[in-house]
Amino acid sequence: MTVRGAADQNDILIFERRESAVRSYCRRFDCVLDTAEGSVVRDVSGREYLDFIAGAGSLNYGHNDPDMRAALIAHLEHGGISHSLDLCTTAKSAFLTAFESLLLLPRGIDYRVQFTAPTGANAIEAALKLARKVTGRSNVIAFTNGFHGMSQGALAATGNRHHRIGPQNPLHGVTRMPYDGYQGDGVDTADLLARMLRDPSSGLDAPAAILLETVQGEGGLNVASPDWLVRVAELARNNGALLVVDDVQAGCGRTGTFFSFEPFGILPDLVVLSKSISGYGLPMALLLIRPEHDVWSPGEHNGTFRGNVHAFVTATVALTKFWAAPGFAADVTRRGELLARRLAAVADVVPGGIVKGRGMMRGVDVGSGALAARITRRCFAEGLMLETSGPYDEVVKVLAPLTTPDDVLDDGLDILLDATRAVLAEAARAVPAGSEVPGPSGLVNA
Amino acid sequence: MTVRGAADQNDILIFERRESAVRSYCRRFDCVLDTAEGSVVRDVSGREYLDFIAGAGSLNYGHNDPDMRAALIAHLEHGGISHSLDLCTTAKSAFLTAFESLLLLPRGIDYRVQFTAPTGANAIEAALKLARKVTGRSNVIAFTNGFHGMSQGALAATGNRHHRIGPQNPLHGVTRMPYDGYQGDGVDTADLLARMLRDPSSGLDAPAAILLETVQGEGGLNVASPDWLVRVAELARNNGALLVVDDVQAGCGRTGTFFSFEPFGILPDLVVLSKSISGYGLPMALLLIRPEHDVWSPGEHNGTFRGNVHAFVTATVALTKFWAAPGFAADVTRRGELLARRLAAVADVVPGGIVKGRGMMRGVDVGSGALAARITRRCFAEGLMLETSGPYDEVVKVLAPLTTPDDVLDDGLDILLDATRAVLAEAARAVPAGSEVPGPSGLVNA
Amino acid sequence: MTVRGAADQNDILIFERRESAVRSYCRRFDCVLDTAEGSVVRDVSGREYLDFIAGAGSLNYGHNDPDMRAALIAHLEHGGISHSLDLCTTAKSAFLTAFESLLLLPRGIDYRVQFTAPTGANAIEAALKLARKVTGRSNVIAFTNGFHGMSQGALAATGNRHHRIGPQNPLHGVTRMPYDGYQGDGVDTADLLARMLRDPSSGLDAPAAILLETVQGEGGLNVASPDWLVRVAELARNNGALLVVDDVQAGCGRTGTFFSFEPFGILPDLVVLSKSISGYGLPMALLLIRPEHDVWSPGEHNGTFRGNVHAFVTATVALTKFWAAPGFAADVTRRGELLARRLAAVADVVPGGIVKGRGMMRGVDVGSGALAARITRRCFAEGLMLETSGPYDEVVKVLAPLTTPDDVLDDGLDILLDATRAVLAEAARAVPAGSEVPGPSGLVNA
Amino acid sequence: MTVRGAADQNDILIFERRESAVRSYCRRFDCVLDTAEGSVVRDVSGREYLDFIAGAGSLNYGHNDPDMRAALIAHLEHGGISHSLDLCTTAKSAFLTAFESLLLLPRGIDYRVQFTAPTGANAIEAALKLARKVTGRSNVIAFTNGFHGMSQGALAATGNRHHRIGPQNPLHGVTRMPYDGYQGDGVDTADLLARMLRDPSSGLDAPAAILLETVQGEGGLNVASPDWLVRVAELARNNGALLVVDDVQAGCGRTGTFFSFEPFGILPDLVVLSKSISGYGLPMALLLIRPEHDVWSPGEHNGTFRGNVHAFVTATVALTKFWAAPGFAADVTRRGELLARRLAAVADVVPGGIVKGRGMMRGVDVGSGALAARITRRCFAEGLMLETSGPYDEVVKVLAPLTTPDDVLDDGLDILLDATRAVLAEAARAVPAGSEVPGPSGLVNA
Repeated sequence: MTVRGAADQNDILIFERRESAVRSYCRRFDCVLDTAEGSVVRDVSGREYLDFIAGAGSLNYGHNDPDMRAALIAHLEHGGISHSLDLCTTAKSAFLTAFESLLLLPRGIDYRVQFTAPTGANAIEAALKLARKVTGRSNVIAFTNGFHGMSQGALAATGNRHHRIGPQNPLHGVTRMPYDGYQGDGVDTADLLARMLRDPSSGLDAPAAILLETVQGEGGLNVASPDWLVRVAELARNNGALLVVDDVQAGCGRTGTFFSFEPFGILPDLVVLSKSISGYGLPMALLLIRPEHDVWSPGEHNGTFRGNVHAFVTATVALTKFWAAPGFAADVTRRGELLARRLAAVADVVPGGIVKGRGMMRGVDVGSGALAARITRRCFAEGLMLETSGPYDEVVKVLAPLTTPDDVLDDGLDILLDATRAVLAEAARAVPAGSEVPGPSGLVNA
Repeated sequence: MTVRGAADQNDILIFERRESAVRSYCRRFDCVLDTAEGSVVRDVSGREYLDFIAGAGSLNYGHNDPDMRAALIAHLEHGGISHSLDLCTTAKSAFLTAFESLLLLPRGIDYRVQFTAPTGANAIEAALKLARKVTGRSNVIAFTNGFHGMSQGALAATGNRHHRIGPQNPLHGVTRMPYDGYQGDGVDTADLLARMLRDPSSGLDAPAAILLETVQGEGGLNVASPDWLVRVAELARNNGALLVVDDVQAGCGRTGTFFSFEPFGILPDLVVLSKSISGYGLPMALLLIRPEHDVWSPGEHNGTFRGNVHAFVTATVALTKFWAAPGFAADVTRRGELLARRLAAVADVVPGGIVKGRGMMRGVDVGSGALAARITRRCFAEGLMLETSGPYDEVVKVLAPLTTPDDVLDDGLDILLDATRAVLAEAARAVPAGSEVPGPSGLVNA
Repeated sequence: MTVRGAADQNDILIFERRESAVRSYCRRFDCVLDTAEGSVVRDVSGREYLDFIAGAGSLNYGHNDPDMRAALIAHLEHGGISHSLDLCTTAKSAFLTAFESLLLLPRGIDYRVQFTAPTGANAIEAALKLARKVTGRSNVIAFTNGFHGMSQGALAATGNRHHRIGPQNPLHGVTRMPYDGYQGDGVDTADLLARMLRDPSSGLDAPAAILLETVQGEGGLNVASPDWLVRVAELARNNGALLVVDDVQAGCGRTGTFFSFEPFGILPDLVVLSKSISGYGLPMALLLIRPEHDVWSPGEHNGTFRGNVHAFVTATVALTKFWAAPGFAADVTRRGELLARRLAAVADVVPGGIVKGRGMMRGVDVGSGALAARITRRCFAEGLMLETSGPYDEVVKVLAPLTTPDDVLDDGLDILLDATRAVLAEAARAVPAGSEVPGPSGLVNA
Repeated sequence: MTVRGAADQNDILIFERRESAVRSYCRRFDCVLDTAEGSVVRDVSGREYLDFIAGAGSLNYGHNDPDMRAALIAHLEHGGISHSLDLCTTAKSAFLTAFESLLLLPRGIDYRVQFTAPTGANAIEAALKLARKVTGRSNVIAFTNGFHGMSQGALAATGNRHHRIGPQNPLHGVTRMPYDGYQGDGVDTADLLARMLRDPSSGLDAPAAILLETVQGEGGLNVASPDWLVRVAELARNNGALLVVDDVQAGCGRTGTFFSFEPFGILPDLVVLSKSISGYGLPMALLLIRPEHDVWSPGEHNGTFRGNVHAFVTATVALTKFWAAPGFAADVTRRGELLARRLAAVADVVPGGIVKGRGMMRGVDVGSGALAARITRRCFAEGLMLETSGPYDEVVKVLAPLTTPDDVLDDGLDILLDATRAVLAEAARAVPAGSEVPGPSGLVNA
């Protein structure tokens, strides 16, 4: 029995006819994908694209890693159980064993693992709920430009106004504070947080949790400085709040270490992982819990798909294959620096362009969403898939698989550089110099 | 590279050491599962169990259907893309085509399909958000003993107090009304809903949505009557509210028709499907939207794993294999009646025992959670996995795969009957007659 | 220096020009009042009206009681302090002493007195806040057609939809349950409350408080039965919730005893008094607190005008003059029965008319707000001020001062009877019999 | 009939026995007040105190102004109506006429007047509700150290943590931003507000209102600069939010002009007045509404005591007597400068002491609440009543009646200076120099 559709025009019509207006990526990338391998995807007509979106960070090891695939096929052929609620399985055992021996023990850190429903948003929901149970407090501090998911609790912590619907969908329990750098170079925003936590009339209720990304992936590749992170971690500890790191996009090696916070000597109370944790792009999410905070009663947060067996199978391969030795991390770091250099050349082309990000999670702030959209559209026409981020979608974001070979990375960045030049040349022809492409101040989008 | 763990005692220790205290099923069923087929699961020691939990309704077609498995292996070997955000893929195209031609067109109904994050809770979140956007209203009416998930918005609609944490985790925007039958035989609870909707001083804000299950799976297999459902659907329509049917557990054929509401001539505005929609137990969820309500702007509700490609592959097989002809549905109905007859015999053994449910979604209210737990524990010892539901876990619930052969179903129900007899005999020996096993009034749990 | 305005047309123009559109009573009663005495008010042109609204229950002792006035003038002439925050004053001492000796000790009940800001709504806010502090719970149970004030927390407990603004003004923390009789004669709504409190999956969070009026003044003069009140009081006690009686309108003797709950042998944990407590219509409110619940820290609920000195002066007279002996209460009861008899005659005139209420708090449900409005308009034209209540304003409500002499009461009720007859005769002339004036089903207003 | 209590020990016992633990001022000032005149109050033993608290700003014209008293007595003797719901009365007409002719017309500003329930908190509730109705938005921006009242909606806008009870009393709908100066000299906090309003991913929902005090009375006499106020007013206008000025404490002439915002050329959309508006300390509050925002439907915000007739009588005298000519305002300004000079001498005595405030609303930040408490206790012993404010109660606050004669003001400030010296000398004797009295950093209270 074959179920794969024929590669014809019907493929597009069925989406227009039947899929909800909420669909988004497929509007910008109008192809029907069929196969994929490494950093390359292929559509039904056989056309190939470099995929530097990588499942929004879910494919850090590229598409269809052959070892993971082999393990999954072996599992299927073995008759391995595929759904088991949160029962114990051999696949889960193998994953936990690998997670413990390859990630926790070498780093000398101790976490309990909660398999939430297999989405980052659900793990965020679990984290906030647990922090509230642990502390008996309700308030959660989240930051400007943070992104933490779309369900009601997660959405309350997400900064993006577009997703909130309106006053008929009220979101509660989160206090918003400025992220590192939000008030410009002269202002340490941790000072404001510190003062408001200390001041009994500040109007800031005692927080259950401080929730942050060390690099804000959707928020525009904003990078928190080590000092700020350390300071905020101290503020959390000194104020009885749990520090929750959302490592959904920045974790799993994206910044050069498995956890994005490793370089800073901080140990969050709770850590949320998802996206690339399965290695193969399969739905999976987990919440790491410092043992003293693991106060859940059985089933207090549950979900039918908590514990995706197929994802355990591929995740175990991912940990074993890539994280048993330090070589992989070093290579990501090296490749991240290569990326930074190449992006600097792109930024040089754009008046006011700025390279942002850390590790293999970088991009160029080109100053306006309109310009970024023109650049990524042209990249797609030339065979490169890229997305944008930031409040105005003004950052062209490169999220290539960590395993992208240097030459493939180079090829993609060549396309980006050429596309940027071409778009700016076009713009220069269209309008007098200096009047069209705004700098990255964000003001043009206000 | 093999990743499957050895079948030894370590399998258990790693769970105790590393998995969060939130784990639940695995506490009651202390085995480490390895393989599964149809209605049978097998642990690492080779012991087999009849699985009449079926992934809490996620395995309506049993474990590891061979055609779905073949299609999934073919997809993997083909190099089929496995993660694609919400891009168009051949796998999604095939699923949508099958969904349209096999489910919608034959029933003459028209829905748009939204692929939410792959959990029922997330689809509920999307449904509530959309209903609020469509109506400009905030309030959602949900019912006593309803279960709709664990994220903040979904949890607000879920009745179970255990999951709510406490006042530090406030849940808003839902008004609770009594479900059909909740006030006893003499009272039509739809009258109360009707009056409160009509009365401008009732304190009931105009609702964006009325959210219900036609059979409350977790709530104790409470069955809404056709009249009540039709009445509530009318109340929704006449009061400008969207009718949202949560068919996560009762859908996908569980009650004998694909959608649980088909027999009643009502057409919900929104329908939530998850659990068995992939057919293979893979994470997948969708929201069906009447076209006039599909007012999402692109990406307004999103999620990394919306559109699980592997699930599309197996779901398409599930629809094609089981729903192309009416034979399957008729067989489920027939088998549901067999189940009802066999459960009546179990109920006869229990003082005050009552058979509850509809189709292949039935159970016996044995009057107390303690008794139900003793019965299911004994069943497990005899090789049958069963769970309980209801506010006091007082309903022994049979959720066998719809494809369970009659003889296997019989075997399982034999175990249940024997276990029930044995437990009650034991109880009778332990205490004077009439004093120990309470009737199904629920009072003993208050 | 005189500040009273001249009695000319300017009096009306200034209101239209300067007073907000929110003004309401003055739209129905287009006169400019100047003086008042007992049950009579007088406008600038010298025209007199019987006042059977009595400040919506704030003038139980009539307008400008001469002893209260004398005491207030004496206080003014003495140079008595008029504003003192919550400092101790001789006036407050006198009030507390009278309250203790005349109300608490004779009834053998023990309450602490909190002087909130001088409005019923503020005392409700304080009650809900205190109940939440005492119990550590958030949820408050309030009832259909309840009215408890207009500030955000009080409004959440108020049933009337008109006052809520919309989804942009969300009101939280209250669960609405049907009041006694709301589901018709055959249904004891306390059963539903009892079951939902007991059922851990009912979706009803454990309540901090159950808040109720024994007679719903604004809600349509609905009277809770003794059995229901006793049952709800028990439910509160057995479920760890505080019973809060809102006696703002029904208290201060309105139903024939000082507290409206006296006849039923229940002792609320918290009681809210306002309206007539000052005796003279001056702003004053208080919260009575069972001593074991008086867990406030100093100033935790405050307000500039808590402790209105002038109101203490007149309130002390009111208690001393009217409540030192049982004669006053007996007279109110007697007069309440007279009122009931006279209203029965009015109800007889109206097809389907029903007398509602208790004590001196009664009215006639005439079946539609339109009819009630026509009747009260005609009464006003004949020199009688009356208001309406109920979800559709369908109840013509008589809230005459408790001190209204029998002959004056008779005069007013003559006007009401004549007006009702005239309006119905007019209606009969205008339309075919039976088609115009609906019965009190409420359906016409839906 | 006399009701004033005898001046004996019973006066104190009754308060301890019967008044709730929530009472606060009376704990610090243990006297039983009887009479008052101008800036002087007198207790039952005949002892006099200078009252530089002035009803927390409710007695800007001193106690028992003879003209107001005469008018009120005349009203009482005339039989003037004392309670009239929101009906038109001659007293209200006179007040509105005076308000229009003496305040609005001379300033060329146009407001509608809403008489809310007679407390500042209730007027704040009305303002927030109206702003939400006008804009269709829910969010309200309020500032650190703001104080706006104790009811649920007003409390959400109040910064003080002490009043919030805890997570069981959730307060919603307000976003807190740093007030002018909160981040120190180098940072313009309006920049942060501007950026968060502009940034669609800031997490700041579009506001219905920006609510502020121009001088934060309870928050520690923090003064917003003209530039900041003008900037925030522009931000409100440009972002479709209503600017709401809470002039409850800073209005009615306290800062030298009737409205505190007059010097800055801004015109708020809504203005809340209470406290001194009646002139005589009687409960009264009003909301001024720009005519285009007066979109209330009749009775949409109501309350039994909206429109306190006695307060209208005295308020009209207050406006006529004090605001008909500019002399009064000029005198307040002059006296405010005198106050500033005298307080500078007090501040000089305190290591790190700082004079704060504006007009006749000033105080000295002495660096710790403990020190401030010792100073005010000693002042009370010497016959001067003063209170403290600020997050740590570290500001000794002088809120003398605006009408306090210069020599009386001098007398009071002499007491304050002497008390400060004495307390510091005592402290110096008790501990080694420099180690005990902290500077005004606030850190000691953290």
